[in-house]
Amino acid sequence: MNQASPNFADKRTIVIVGGVAGGASAAARARRCNEAAEIIMFEKDSFVSFANCGLPYHIGDEIAERDKLLVATPELFQKRFRIQAKTRHEVLSIDQANKSVRVKNLETGEEFDQSYDKLILSPGAAPIVPPIEGVKSENVFTLRNIEDMDQIKQKLMHGLQNKTVKRAVIVGAGFIGLEMVEQLHHLGLDVSLVELAPQVLPPLDVEMAKLIENELLRHGIKLNLGDGIAGLDVEDNRAVGVKLNSGKVIETDLVILGIGVRPNNGLAKDIGLDIGQTGGIKVNSYMQTSNPDIYAVGDVSEYEHALLGETMRVPLAGPANRAGRIAGEHAATDHSPAMGAVKGTAIVRVFELTAGMTGLSEKMADRYNRNAKFVIIQAGHHAGYFPGAKSITLKLIYDPDTSLVLGAQAIGAAGVDKRIDVIATALKFKATIQDLTELDLAYAPPFGSAKDAIHIAAYAAQNDLSGLAPMIAPDTDLTDKQVVDVRTFKEQEALAAVPGAHLIEVDQLRDHIDKLDPMKPTVVICHSAKRGHVGTRILLGHGFQEVSNLTGGMSIRKLYGD
Amino acid sequence: MNQASPNFADKRTIVIVGGVAGGASAAARARRCNEAAEIIMFEKDSFVSFANCGLPYHIGDEIAERDKLLVATPELFQKRFRIQAKTRHEVLSIDQANKSVRVKNLETGEEFDQSYDKLILSPGAAPIVPPIEGVKSENVFTLRNIEDMDQIKQKLMHGLQNKTVKRAVIVGAGFIGLEMVEQLHHLGLDVSLVELAPQVLPPLDVEMAKLIENELLRHGIKLNLGDGIAGLDVEDNRAVGVKLNSGKVIETDLVILGIGVRPNNGLAKDIGLDIGQTGGIKVNSYMQTSNPDIYAVGDVSEYEHALLGETMRVPLAGPANRAGRIAGEHAATDHSPAMGAVKGTAIVRVFELTAGMTGLSEKMADRYNRNAKFVIIQAGHHAGYFPGAKSITLKLIYDPDTSLVLGAQAIGAAGVDKRIDVIATALKFKATIQDLTELDLAYAPPFGSAKDAIHIAAYAAQNDLSGLAPMIAPDTDLTDKQVVDVRTFKEQEALAAVPGAHLIEVDQLRDHIDKLDPMKPTVVICHSAKRGHVGTRILLGHGFQEVSNLTGGMSIRKLYGD
Repeated sequence: MNQASPNFADKRTIVIVGGVAGGASAAARARRCNEAAEIIMFEKDSFVSFANCGLPYHIGDEIAERDKLLVATPELFQKRFRIQAKTRHEVLSIDQANKSVRVKNLETGEEFDQSYDKLILSPGAAPIVPPIEGVKSENVFTLRNIEDMDQIKQKLMHGLQNKTVKRAVIVGAGFIGLEMVEQLHHLGLDVSLVELAPQVLPPLDVEMAKLIENELLRHGIKLNLGDGIAGLDVEDNRAVGVKLNSGKVIETDLVILGIGVRPNNGLAKDIGLDIGQTGGIKVNSYMQTSNPDIYAVGDVSEYEHALLGETMRVPLAGPANRAGRIAGEHAATDHSPAMGAVKGTAIVRVFELTAGMTGLSEKMADRYNRNAKFVIIQAGHHAGYFPGAKSITLKLIYDPDTSLVLGAQAIGAAGVDKRIDVIATALKFKATIQDLTELDLAYAPPFGSAKDAIHIAAYAAQNDLSGLAPMIAPDTDLTDKQVVDVRTFKEQEALAAVPGAHLIEVDQLRDHIDKLDPMKPTVVICHSAKRGHVGTRILLGHGFQEVSNLTGGMSIRKLYGD
Repeated sequence: MNQASPNFADKRTIVIVGGVAGGASAAARARRCNEAAEIIMFEKDSFVSFANCGLPYHIGDEIAERDKLLVATPELFQKRFRIQAKTRHEVLSIDQANKSVRVKNLETGEEFDQSYDKLILSPGAAPIVPPIEGVKSENVFTLRNIEDMDQIKQKLMHGLQNKTVKRAVIVGAGFIGLEMVEQLHHLGLDVSLVELAPQVLPPLDVEMAKLIENELLRHGIKLNLGDGIAGLDVEDNRAVGVKLNSGKVIETDLVILGIGVRPNNGLAKDIGLDIGQTGGIKVNSYMQTSNPDIYAVGDVSEYEHALLGETMRVPLAGPANRAGRIAGEHAATDHSPAMGAVKGTAIVRVFELTAGMTGLSEKMADRYNRNAKFVIIQAGHHAGYFPGAKSITLKLIYDPDTSLVLGAQAIGAAGVDKRIDVIATALKFKATIQDLTELDLAYAPPFGSAKDAIHIAAYAAQNDLSGLAPMIAPDTDLTDKQVVDVRTFKEQEALAAVPGAHLIEVDQLRDHIDKLDPMKPTVVICHSAKRGHVGTRILLGHGFQEVSNLTGGMSIRKLYGD
């Protein structure tokens, strides 16, 4: 194993720029691997290590104690790890030739040089602030660190008390944006959401995002999709209206900008380190930049994407943690295991629902010209006969030529994280659809089903791949097809059938098969594609030439368009 | 893909013996793959398909409606699948030469022959009933089918009403035994548990089982471990006492026997089909027995075990379902995908805790002479700073020579199923410890941690494998070791240290290192092995020759012995 040797002790100096997003884990790992090293961490903010993913939840009081977010203090770093963690110290520049950094103490203004043998860059990323007037108003915020959180929280405390803050506009429907929507709604605010893309959670495919949009609407959130922020109406240094590209103006008492982050790559750019296409610092498997004595981790670096064979920024805490550990070990000992490729795994809770994803989406596959098909299934998160079963909608994306699994998205009230983690694990091993059908997952009624949602999705994909029951996309144009709607009449009433469809309940299909033309390209439709599968098999079994099952059924088809 | 072709239609006759445990899924899949086949299912009980894993939960009223357990009726089979499902029909014998079965209608007594082209055996298994006197008393039960459940439920309804049933003895602390303990406790009974093995849940390792035993004790369950049932005291056809091997007698009003099942392999034995070492019918990857026209699935068949390279019975619903699907497709079309090897994945809820397992246990590895080491870690099921985090104890077993993951066990109040499923998935792909460190799992505060329990366990194993921080088993004899207890003095008071240990808090270790002998084999101990890791690294970093960290720490060590 390519790892540090037990008694390695080399009096090198390791300097770490930035505590959050991998810096702190790099520091701790460096110490564990090299007891003799001098380790110094500079952080320009006031907190050297904090739970940045928890910030929205403290704002909404779901995490009541602020102290819980402060993961490690400079005192702990010193006491346990003999690491000098210096907050309010900004690294201004790097001198590669002399292996030293120029540091400014932001409290005293004093500047000094600190030499290094190995340098680890973990400066993170900064929120993107659009260049519009009024963006510096006292009630317009971004959320990136403890200071930001404290400011928002203070504004809210006063504003809720004296009733001057009743409405909020969140700009950006990504992870942080949606977490803020949820938390501000919990606090009783009237929340509007603005997103430039025509959907929330842009990494999701459109129909899956629609399920989350419905959940937001159900909670009274006002959605403004496909519309961006054009400006602010400001009165007395207070934004009172958000002007959108469409011309619409949303009156508000508070604005949160969550439109993405920009890597803090200035230090790296200044000295000519290689920068990738997505603006992150390029690194090898040990997180070494183009200068092998300088490492980069976290939101400022790029990672290899397992499914695209390209590198990209993935500003998430999981990869940052793993990368920090590797950089710390390598910087301390010149050896370490390699960093694994990322899979784009991510998850977010939105009121009662959870949205999770891993690997490629349908649109990502499109964008990268990857041949991809998909199935969408619905299944209980545990046995249907056991109380409390919640439905999961699972989209499984695969390569129809190789049958490799490419990715998955899941939406549901429970058990989404488990399915995403299982598929993320399968992706690590370049799993095929057949592999997924073979998974031996844990089953007892409170935890799953004998046939898990993952099995059901994999079976559907397998039936598609083999031609046993071909699947077509839920938004397929059905104009020229012979459409057979096998739902009950009651269901067809509740959600109208496709115009021109033959309405034949699945259990009647064999008896009325002579009403259909076996030579015509045929699509079978039901609510969720389960009975559609039965119908497809009946028709193919009776010699129909070309039959497909509409994946996801009407319940998904209705999500497209308006 | 080796699967049925879309328009396959061959007028063969497929006969299925037994609906539960794979039979019903075989029948449905056979129809889907071959619309022209005649499909007949004989079931000797009254129900052709029911949720057998749900039986305990209806007894305890957690599943209120009995109908929820009846998955599919003969009417549905007929209507949707054109399958003749005949209940109360027993298959008496098989005539291989003439390809027919002799069937008895248990209602009318009438016997008849039914010819087949393909025969699928899914007769399940029968509860083992010990050959002791009184075992047929009216208040002694086994639990295998709806009839058993109805009888127990009726007995309880009357007994709870008229207060004649206040105490119950469950014999057997396997999955069903523990589920019954929980449910009868919910109903207010005074429950005693008897288990011949010295621990509950024999598939678990002893220290992990102890965590479940503590949970049972916390709920007032009376444990009788390492003791078996020797006989019954019977009065008026009612068992009033359970006599144990130790001589102890437990007074009772109700006895449930859950001491395992025996495969119903009589039909197969009678005609000389190959039977495996564990008593199950031998099958190939398509579930064909030694007679390729006869298939066997479910609790009566053996499966290949992924980690042992042997076949064995695994009487669980997951494999039965998957096997049924494969047998049904193959019997209907002569083609199908192959059955994947099982991994021994299983899970059970016991009051507020869940016990899950996959792959090999430490003792199973021992029994099969597999070189195995393990780590035991404790971690939150989601971010510690987010409210409601529950601790998971995770034991990860690996081969120290190849670094292959061999298995895992987890106990906790939440998130156990997810970790077990992820590791079961990794096992499918012969994952190494390094692979687990690279997993890109979903993280947001409500769902996990940036460093998941699985990562933490894999890191610990990786540090052990590389020699960076060797681990030793929590029950190691420490007599001749230099033991360093790095817990706080308060912790050492609460749970006494190992006799002779040096008591030095981890943050003081560097300052007091001269009190220790760097040449002596040294073991570092803390509560959970986390600070033990820091201590181990400090000592090795200061040139100590041989240092290990006690995996699991005192919190696990205390579980061994009494």
